Amino acid sequence: MAATNRKIVLRNYVTGFPKESDMELVAAGGAAPSRVPEGTDGAVLVKNLYLSCDPYMRGRMSKSDGSSYVHGFVVAEPITGYGVGKVVDSRHPGFKAGDYVWGMTGWEEYSLIKDPTGLFTIRHPELPLSYYTGLLGMAGLTAYYGFHEICAPKEGERVFVSAASGAVGQLVGQFAKLMGCYVVGSAGSDDKVTLLKEKFGFDEAFNYKKEKDLNLALKRCFPEGIDVYFENVGGAMLDAVLLNMRVRGRVAACGMISQYNLDRPDPIHNLTAIITKRLRIEGFIVSDHYDKYREYEEKVARYVKEGKIAYVEDVTEGLENAPAALIGLFSGRNVGKQVVVVAKE
Amino acid sequence: MAATNRKIVLRNYVTGFPKESDMELVAAGGAAPSRVPEGTDGAVLVKNLYLSCDPYMRGRMSKSDGSSYVHGFVVAEPITGYGVGKVVDSRHPGFKAGDYVWGMTGWEEYSLIKDPTGLFTIRHPELPLSYYTGLLGMAGLTAYYGFHEICAPKEGERVFVSAASGAVGQLVGQFAKLMGCYVVGSAGSDDKVTLLKEKFGFDEAFNYKKEKDLNLALKRCFPEGIDVYFENVGGAMLDAVLLNMRVRGRVAACGMISQYNLDRPDPIHNLTAIITKRLRIEGFIVSDHYDKYREYEEKVARYVKEGKIAYVEDVTEGLENAPAALIGLFSGRNVGKQVVVVAKE
Repeated sequence: MAATNRKIVLRNYVTGFPKESDMELVAAGGAAPSRVPEGTDGAVLVKNLYLSCDPYMRGRMSKSDGSSYVHGFVVAEPITGYGVGKVVDSRHPGFKAGDYVWGMTGWEEYSLIKDPTGLFTIRHPELPLSYYTGLLGMAGLTAYYGFHEICAPKEGERVFVSAASGAVGQLVGQFAKLMGCYVVGSAGSDDKVTLLKEKFGFDEAFNYKKEKDLNLALKRCFPEGIDVYFENVGGAMLDAVLLNMRVRGRVAACGMISQYNLDRPDPIHNLTAIITKRLRIEGFIVSDHYDKYREYEEKVARYVKEGKIAYVEDVTEGLENAPAALIGLFSGRNVGKQVVVVAKE
Repeated sequence: MAATNRKIVLRNYVTGFPKESDMELVAAGGAAPSRVPEGTDGAVLVKNLYLSCDPYMRGRMSKSDGSSYVHGFVVAEPITGYGVGKVVDSRHPGFKAGDYVWGMTGWEEYSLIKDPTGLFTIRHPELPLSYYTGLLGMAGLTAYYGFHEICAPKEGERVFVSAASGAVGQLVGQFAKLMGCYVVGSAGSDDKVTLLKEKFGFDEAFNYKKEKDLNLALKRCFPEGIDVYFENVGGAMLDAVLLNMRVRGRVAACGMISQYNLDRPDPIHNLTAIITKRLRIEGFIVSDHYDKYREYEEKVARYVKEGKIAYVEDVTEGLENAPAALIGLFSGRNVGKQVVVVAKE
């Protein structure tokens, strides 16, 4: 076995649109690790199987001004993010060799996780393990918590989801349908629009890149207006949504992916609608709500087994292709949840 | 008695900044009315004493596109708005001649109010009646409900109020001080800043017209950031506030007076803060919450008698001067609550 521990490291802090060359693959010397070193009680050694590419990671590529809710990456150190792995060795009482886990890990073949409080053991390894990078992990709880708790939806309400075929959006739409809502999604290609309607059961969907006027597109899909908007994109879409919200509408601000690579965010003009329509706009970050995770895992594992939830992943093979996969999120290249396979087992 | 029933009517729908000549004084012929006409059961005839000038009235001067929460004014008909009056005659079981009332009335000497469901009898006529155009009426409940219910403040939190010497702002600041908050206000003149600190007990205040950079002004007053923002102005101030909010901050969107005369509202750039800081921004309209009014009236009438609340009015004498008083709101000419005296009794 000539296995070492290949890693993807950040080469430099990023401004504007990130490039593959902002990251690089490096091979650490020596054999692959197999033990938690002595003197590191509480640590867990994980073999990484699947890595998650998520839009929030863009913020971590910038030089931190200390204002963000996540720490920035460290130049020359591995990218970190959510992933699924198998415990190789453990000096932590909550984990043992052979456990499958998901949580914060490194973009490398093996990660020594010194503080595994952010790791969850996987209770349904009979389901595809990669689902724990999305549906059964962070993105799934994001969709569920954001929709049910922040949006406070009622049966029959009119729900709009942007970036609707993405990891979070596809689930929000299906949770909304399960509640008996009317659901419309926007996405960036005709294929994604087809997916929304045919695979995920959205009532309507549109390709925002083909619409000359987002306000008119929304009026066409929501002649009576929008009760609930699940915000993943920001910018011009948010501005158009504000014009189409109904009185006492709610906006869950989950992400604004259209804004992350801009030096100066796009202008929003229609905020007086917040007053005239008594809107509530609320931001949330799922990591504040992991106390709800176990309940979520059981409920949605059951949904999957019952065929109540469809789920589409965009799977990239190989750690070396992780940088391209991550960057693809910002041009919408991925169709569904973007996963990187490091190893199958 | 040569009294007729002089009125202020709207001459034309307004775009941009309103002018006095958009309204005019007209004298209806005949004697002043003294009876509710037969056949109008349920109506009340009110002699108007004090009229309220409020920023939301600007929206009613525009040609309505049906989207606003208030009906527009009607050209050639009297302006309508909040006021205080005395019942001259009543065919409604809830009101009798001699009652003092406040609520929606006309900008005229006498108003026949066919549907008086929006009128409240005044339970504390021993206090200055004009207070029922503001402190003890709509503006007061707006400040109280918006601050306590929408902002959900906690003792010791850091509160910022814009348009802080206005009818609503001066009260928000004092309610916040009564709760033990740190309170800063912005206003548009040095005299108003002095008023905020010396009369209303704000901890700090600044003249936004003299600040080169609103972001820096807020950082100076809130080195640790803002927990609660009571939004009265919108535009550049809101954008600067977003940069200075603390995690889990709350914004009560009450008004955006800086935007009401603009064809295209000012751009807001910093909305990603909603996510990174998990902010809640919520609009409200006080007329949805008049079920809370009687409780409010008793509490604040007591505060006034105990000297716990200071209140500053800007009093304009004469119905004929009402148009100038209303327009003055949009240049910040008024100092405190803008009232128009039609008659003293």
